[in-house]
Amino acid sequence: MTDSETLGGGDTVLLKRLRCVLVETSHPGNIGAAARAMKNMGLSQLVLVKPKIFPDDEATARAAGATDVLENAVICDSLAEALQGCALSFGTTARPRRLSNVAVTPRDCAAKSLGYLRANEGADVALVFGRERSGLTNEELDLCQQPLNIPTNPDYSSLNLGAAVQLLSYEMRVAALDGSGASEMRELAQHDELEGLFTALEQAMIKVGFLNPDNPRLLMRRVRLLLNRATPDAEEVRLLRGFAAKIMGSR
Amino acid sequence: MTDSETLGGGDTVLLKRLRCVLVETSHPGNIGAAARAMKNMGLSQLVLVKPKIFPDDEATARAAGATDVLENAVICDSLAEALQGCALSFGTTARPRRLSNVAVTPRDCAAKSLGYLRANEGADVALVFGRERSGLTNEELDLCQQPLNIPTNPDYSSLNLGAAVQLLSYEMRVAALDGSGASEMRELAQHDELEGLFTALEQAMIKVGFLNPDNPRLLMRRVRLLLNRATPDAEEVRLLRGFAAKIMGSR
Repeated sequence: MTDSETLGGGDTVLLKRLRCVLVETSHPGNIGAAARAMKNMGLSQLVLVKPKIFPDDEATARAAGATDVLENAVICDSLAEALQGCALSFGTTARPRRLSNVAVTPRDCAAKSLGYLRANEGADVALVFGRERSGLTNEELDLCQQPLNIPTNPDYSSLNLGAAVQLLSYEMRVAALDGSGASEMRELAQHDELEGLFTALEQAMIKVGFLNPDNPRLLMRRVRLLLNRATPDAEEVRLLRGFAAKIMGSR
Repeated sequence: MTDSETLGGGDTVLLKRLRCVLVETSHPGNIGAAARAMKNMGLSQLVLVKPKIFPDDEATARAAGATDVLENAVICDSLAEALQGCALSFGTTARPRRLSNVAVTPRDCAAKSLGYLRANEGADVALVFGRERSGLTNEELDLCQQPLNIPTNPDYSSLNLGAAVQLLSYEMRVAALDGSGASEMRELAQHDELEGLFTALEQAMIKVGFLNPDNPRLLMRRVRLLLNRATPDAEEVRLLRGFAAKIMGSR
């Protein structure tokens, strides 16, 4: 945080706790463009999951004056690793998926994110961007709490990766400046707490014979979708884990 | 206008009456990126005032699938010529100018523009973007009706030209769609289905010894809050009822 950013008004310092996660990016130029877009809007945390080519001169060239963002980029082996320490995560998707929650708009995403960051100090918020050609897999989207869709022309919807990062970063900055999201003030459960809950619920469902581990169908995906949509807080996660533990100990 | 754009909802057809005017652009790649950004958001009118290099392979490459926007671009000798037929025009500026109106935000610009386009059929609206290094001259800004400023990090405010076009085009699309009142498409569970679920969950919690009916505390209220926040659909309610039924039958 610099002095002039402190003076920039609003809560722009919160933007430092927003993580842009790029999954298996093919073109290093797009990584550079993303870094520049982030810095233009006051974001700084870039996380790269298995980038194809990085570091690279093309990334540095496209980053223009944002090479500090590139140099501080964290490289991860998996999306799960990239989401450690995040309490709220949004996965970008260009199309509706079968069996998924309704995608939020960039504006709603920004309001939710800033509301969360204002109310909590413990954890970050992640924006997850998929591969240039194929986006995120369904499994990756399931690791994120909510799908996020940028509205585009249905005749020509393939948004450049750097452009997608630019639009989201911009919405975050506008939300930081205008104080929106004041109503979203709950302390959310963190990523690993939620994952622990899903595991506990799965075991409880197996125990009572509701879920057949040899034929699990889509049960756990449906449970994930439902609970992710509710964005549970830490106490709610403890409540449900307590219930699951009682089921496990009930005979 | 294509069929699917007609079906896109809202007033996206109005976006065809928005003109993006690029003044003395140096890098043809930026012209291509602008064309792609416009088409992604459903805009189509690109006007170039004395471009340094155009047409050019780099412009075509960066335009990706938006070469139609490039091919239909109108080339002018002056900004005044580019603004013919426009009733409302916004000039982008990175800094406050001496003796000028307070700059509008992209969001206000979009609201004003779409409001104008909805209410009038006779004329277009122009968004004017200056040179990569020096922006618009004061004289050019004076030709526009209102100055427009994209909020950026004061430490790093040099927004790429393509990114600026992307952000404005996006705000225009969102403003066009807002008129449509698009709503969520999930079929939510009805009140009595939800109540039946709460009763079933309460019984299951009692059965496994998680909820003490003599001292229920706030357990069921918390469960209600969580599930109501998720706005479950009918199938999700059936899933959770199935789980509760299995718990009841499990010993």
